[in-house]
Amino acid sequence: MSDFREQALKYHAEPVPGKISIELTKPAETVNDLALAYSPGVAEPVREIAADPDNAYKYTAKGNMVAVITNGTAILGLGNLGPLASKPVMEGKSLLFKRFANLDSIDIEVKHRTTQDFINTVENIADTFGGINLEDIKAPECFEIEKALIERCSIPVFHDDQHGTAIVTAAGMLNALEVQGKEIHDALIVCLGAGAAAIACMELLIKCGAQREHIYMLDRKGVIHTRRDDLNEYKQLFANNTDKRTLQDVISDADVFVGVSGPNLLSADDLKLMADKPVVFACSNPDPEIKPELAHEARTDLIMATGRSDYPNQVNNVLCFPFIFRGALDVRASKINDEMKIAAVHAIREIAKEPVSKEVLEAAGVDSLEFGSEYIIPKPMDPRLLPRVALAVANAAIESGVAQLPLPANYMQS
Amino acid sequence: MSDFREQALKYHAEPVPGKISIELTKPAETVNDLALAYSPGVAEPVREIAADPDNAYKYTAKGNMVAVITNGTAILGLGNLGPLASKPVMEGKSLLFKRFANLDSIDIEVKHRTTQDFINTVENIADTFGGINLEDIKAPECFEIEKALIERCSIPVFHDDQHGTAIVTAAGMLNALEVQGKEIHDALIVCLGAGAAAIACMELLIKCGAQREHIYMLDRKGVIHTRRDDLNEYKQLFANNTDKRTLQDVISDADVFVGVSGPNLLSADDLKLMADKPVVFACSNPDPEIKPELAHEARTDLIMATGRSDYPNQVNNVLCFPFIFRGALDVRASKINDEMKIAAVHAIREIAKEPVSKEVLEAAGVDSLEFGSEYIIPKPMDPRLLPRVALAVANAAIESGVAQLPLPANYMQS
Repeated sequence: MSDFREQALKYHAEPVPGKISIELTKPAETVNDLALAYSPGVAEPVREIAADPDNAYKYTAKGNMVAVITNGTAILGLGNLGPLASKPVMEGKSLLFKRFANLDSIDIEVKHRTTQDFINTVENIADTFGGINLEDIKAPECFEIEKALIERCSIPVFHDDQHGTAIVTAAGMLNALEVQGKEIHDALIVCLGAGAAAIACMELLIKCGAQREHIYMLDRKGVIHTRRDDLNEYKQLFANNTDKRTLQDVISDADVFVGVSGPNLLSADDLKLMADKPVVFACSNPDPEIKPELAHEARTDLIMATGRSDYPNQVNNVLCFPFIFRGALDVRASKINDEMKIAAVHAIREIAKEPVSKEVLEAAGVDSLEFGSEYIIPKPMDPRLLPRVALAVANAAIESGVAQLPLPANYMQS
Repeated sequence: MSDFREQALKYHAEPVPGKISIELTKPAETVNDLALAYSPGVAEPVREIAADPDNAYKYTAKGNMVAVITNGTAILGLGNLGPLASKPVMEGKSLLFKRFANLDSIDIEVKHRTTQDFINTVENIADTFGGINLEDIKAPECFEIEKALIERCSIPVFHDDQHGTAIVTAAGMLNALEVQGKEIHDALIVCLGAGAAAIACMELLIKCGAQREHIYMLDRKGVIHTRRDDLNEYKQLFANNTDKRTLQDVISDADVFVGVSGPNLLSADDLKLMADKPVVFACSNPDPEIKPELAHEARTDLIMATGRSDYPNQVNNVLCFPFIFRGALDVRASKINDEMKIAAVHAIREIAKEPVSKEVLEAAGVDSLEFGSEYIIPKPMDPRLLPRVALAVANAAIESGVAQLPLPANYMQS
């Protein structure tokens, strides 16, 4: 057993199994404490909530509680291993919510017969929580599931594998294009991969200015084009009226490559076909579509990002999901809409352009970080992310009319 | 607003809403911590669980996590106020699980169309947890729900309103009859109320030696008898072939009265009709079927219990549910069967017969507690309950063949 494998298993097993526990936020020692917490005192908040459902936010843990919900059909890079096997990942996500945004978060693993059964189950338990983070659900079912739950639930529902990835990718991409002196509006984009994250990334890039007809998307069968009859409705939106069929056909003169596919699918020769000053996001994890060493050897005018923490420019969802939920819940947004997602993109972008504190440098293990080809995306440990992204998201929720509360006084000012 | 009402609302609202939070049991500060907790380290326990589902108990919080699940159809004495309004009660139950047995517990409020929809929803999320405590679900649906979930889930499912109440009632009843010099086998029993708790109490008393034909059960329409055609299948089991129709008809010469009905439904005159040395459990809460003062005035040879903490002999479910789950989970019982329930009854009984520590006296605010008519049931704060009840339940699970683990070394010996 490798050292790291052993360490990871030990971390999960000792001194207690798993990573999260339930703790009490109120005294529960004396007979009097218990008379307030349970019978007969608990009848009072029950009556208040029965009279006005919003009082659940006043008297229960609902408003700060995010459920991390999965069916285990697309676990990390491991595939469909079922709900129970996904539990360490979901508890891990709950840990990140707490660590980064002080949100209480509990994992729920759902087995189900049909997609409708999954949707129905989550809808039935949704009132328990303040928000729902969908996780590791495979495409294309994840699109239908998220859409249905957003419609049926009065709380924010957010599929992080789609939108978290898309938001961080868009933030990094806009910065990379700025460094390269290019405009997103003009960029020719190749997207290798047509799963949940790929489609969400491209849809968000379009909302940030990219042109749909400038995007070539490829799935396992090659370029997605209008003469294919095997496309689901989500891929169809990216069907190009073109004779190009292969990655090599479309990569020529492309400004941007986004890989959300598998290891080593982009060669150095492919890379050499791209336009001047290309941007390559090779997000397959842990093994990117092209190794950074190989890429930089092939092209010196390149800006590159990966999903890995041991290279510059890591696309890491933790830059977004804790804070987007923090902002959404703090103004009690009924959903996380495009305005909020785009606000998160720009808040994340801006942080990368500003000077970095010593604390962030130490956590990142580097001497300096200056906005440029090696630093287009903030570091996960950057303490500015929480206040800045949450504030931007909360303001966007208010401005777009989905917030049910005003901005709290001195919000994120401490 | 009364002082107590104000206190109860303040307790629930400040300094944070609600009573529970999620906390981390593992370090999550450094980049290295997060690499173990989430990507890439988390893939290791995922693979282990995919290979053997039992590893979920080794690497996740599942094994110590009890879900408190309701549909809000029978909230305390308040009735059907829906799932959201029940949330403070469910969080309160989670608080009690933590406080009394160090079990992690999370509430889940379920809305649903049909009973099958509720069952299906709970079944779909059950693998998330180590056990399920059903709560505040109205009769008769609660019977069908519990039965179906016990069959479909591999983890313990326990409707506390039925069985917790029944276990504590049976423990107190057996002790009361012993003090009165009576045998449960011979006792003539009147049960006023025919809901979930009433039926469960009577079924468990039968398993502890009571004779079904010695029990008269009454619902809102009077005595349950064989010529009634309005009985559900659970009440039918208590239909007596009798001409007696009213409480007054059946209370004559009864040894035992169990009330799980409503306030002031038993009069002093009714009580005077009972046999010598009667036992009266008037469990309607907060107002019992007969006020203790009135009862003791009518009969000096009485032993009486209520659901209230301000009178002797409180029937309080907290004497049972934290510990029965503790014992069941510690040997990974697949269910909570009759043997385990009866083991809990006897463990609770025995504690009341043994000398009490100073600590328990102080918590109870009394100078002494001696087994007898004023002390047939242990006090909720008695620290012996956890080790004794959990050990008895764990042993019963092992002996009855539903435990998947042996007794842990030195179990409950500290």
